[in-house]
Amino acid sequence: MRAVQITEFGGPEVLNVTELPEPEAGPGRVLINVSRAGINYADTHQAENSYLSKASLPLVPGGEAVGTTPDGRRVVALLGTGGYAEKAVAPEEMAWDVPDAVDDVTALGMVVQGASAWLLLRRSVHLAEGESVVVHAAAGGVGTLAVQLAKAWGAGRVIATASSEDKRALALDLGADVAVDANEPDMKAALIDANGGKRVDVVLEMTGGEVTDQSLRALAPFGRLAFYGMASRKPPTPVQPAALMAHSTTIAGMWLAHVFQLPGDVMRTALGELFALAADGRLRVVAGGEYGLTGVREAHEALRSRRTTGKLVLDPAR
Amino acid sequence: MRAVQITEFGGPEVLNVTELPEPEAGPGRVLINVSRAGINYADTHQAENSYLSKASLPLVPGGEAVGTTPDGRRVVALLGTGGYAEKAVAPEEMAWDVPDAVDDVTALGMVVQGASAWLLLRRSVHLAEGESVVVHAAAGGVGTLAVQLAKAWGAGRVIATASSEDKRALALDLGADVAVDANEPDMKAALIDANGGKRVDVVLEMTGGEVTDQSLRALAPFGRLAFYGMASRKPPTPVQPAALMAHSTTIAGMWLAHVFQLPGDVMRTALGELFALAADGRLRVVAGGEYGLTGVREAHEALRSRRTTGKLVLDPAR
Repeated sequence: MRAVQITEFGGPEVLNVTELPEPEAGPGRVLINVSRAGINYADTHQAENSYLSKASLPLVPGGEAVGTTPDGRRVVALLGTGGYAEKAVAPEEMAWDVPDAVDDVTALGMVVQGASAWLLLRRSVHLAEGESVVVHAAAGGVGTLAVQLAKAWGAGRVIATASSEDKRALALDLGADVAVDANEPDMKAALIDANGGKRVDVVLEMTGGEVTDQSLRALAPFGRLAFYGMASRKPPTPVQPAALMAHSTTIAGMWLAHVFQLPGDVMRTALGELFALAADGRLRVVAGGEYGLTGVREAHEALRSRRTTGKLVLDPAR
Repeated sequence: MRAVQITEFGGPEVLNVTELPEPEAGPGRVLINVSRAGINYADTHQAENSYLSKASLPLVPGGEAVGTTPDGRRVVALLGTGGYAEKAVAPEEMAWDVPDAVDDVTALGMVVQGASAWLLLRRSVHLAEGESVVVHAAAGGVGTLAVQLAKAWGAGRVIATASSEDKRALALDLGADVAVDANEPDMKAALIDANGGKRVDVVLEMTGGEVTDQSLRALAPFGRLAFYGMASRKPPTPVQPAALMAHSTTIAGMWLAHVFQLPGDVMRTALGELFALAADGRLRVVAGGEYGLTGVREAHEALRSRRTTGKLVLDPAR
């Protein structure tokens, strides 16, 4: 089969198209005839081995694939590695059936970004109807879906932040009620202003530093901030529990990997709801471009330069 | 009418029984013929004026009363001050109807302590069925009710902590599955051990210091700690949002006063549910003793020495 393989760690230049033997699905694992694979920023870390969990060589990158199994199921799966190939193998419990009404790009957009948005709103902040919701990085993978989910679940006002005019336009197009420049120097005031002068009920935050600090201060009583990333690499100011008590506010950390430690099959529940909303046309994944195997270097270059918007996918058949 | 009045701030010795004119209920306020008033630790602060919000003299202490209105309603009310008297006045929106099946002590136990336990479990941590719940200070006003509510709402395992054998026995009698000594030096290990070796899902914490720190570390992924008091006066270690993310854990501050800033009539909802459970015999307020007006000094001395357990009430008719 054709695949992209890495034999030394590095930048986009180490991604080479090659011919490899088909992988074998051992017990408890499922073979997937890959229709499309997700291309994520995390894959650039995998290629240069800059993750906490180190990779070993040779390596076929790619953590997400959608395709068909030998027994005819159409599934989307989390793989760890091996997605940039015509065939890939996933643990049985990490492969979920995809309804016909959900296309490949949408299925790939749900398995990490969609599930994250679902968990943030349902499990981290417990969004209630009518509440105001701030979505930082609203044009991002999680953000685009969080904006739509919040609206679909009855949020009162969705306030998006994004760093460019185009990204703010996208957030508004996806249903945000108002879009705020992510570079506002006084984010607390900007959020309260965007909420008609009232403090906000919910904030989804993945920026870090001052944005987290000021967003916490913008929370209404019983408001919740979910913290699920630190894109600026700047840690927020440590939080005094007594200060949370003085304002009846909550800060909730969230890392998707922990979903698999929850009782019950939460991923199946989440994906079931997400696929149903997508099939109804109420939730869409923003497409960011499709690449063939030989286009993977170009895709990684685009991701590294942070100039992409939307879900990037790989078609291993070309 | 007879009342307890303070004309100078101080300890129990400043509480004097005297004859005062009946208070008048102005617009938007309701007169209550007091059947019983709550006696709380907070009243000792009121008497010595050691609160953040300062009092002015002369002063009738007492923030909670249950009784009847001139039009025949039986209500429990939050007053601010004035409860230690035969008649008291409350804002209309701070007086809630009490079903006949709920006795005076129970009604008084619900209006602050019960509502706090309700808010902690429903709004701060969103308890789900089957989850393990740690209740620190489980023999306290909020703790005794939180233990019972958690069980009534389907908690999997309720772990109580308390500082004495008697208090732990009370917590077990109220339905806790296991009781842990509040003075355990390694609280994290003690909680996990009490939960059969597993990390815990929910912690209700009002102690502060090491107990908060170690309880946070005992949380399972997607676990939540509600922080609603600092009885030890020792602040916990400030919390790094990145550390919350690394474990998918949540810390939620809660101060009851904020319930009145929530949309909808949350207090009415909470008290309605609490009274229904009490009427069903599924939730009981632990009685801590009844005092006449002339016994108020003794009641404050007992509270100050921290030797009371259960709800203390005042009967202004004697």
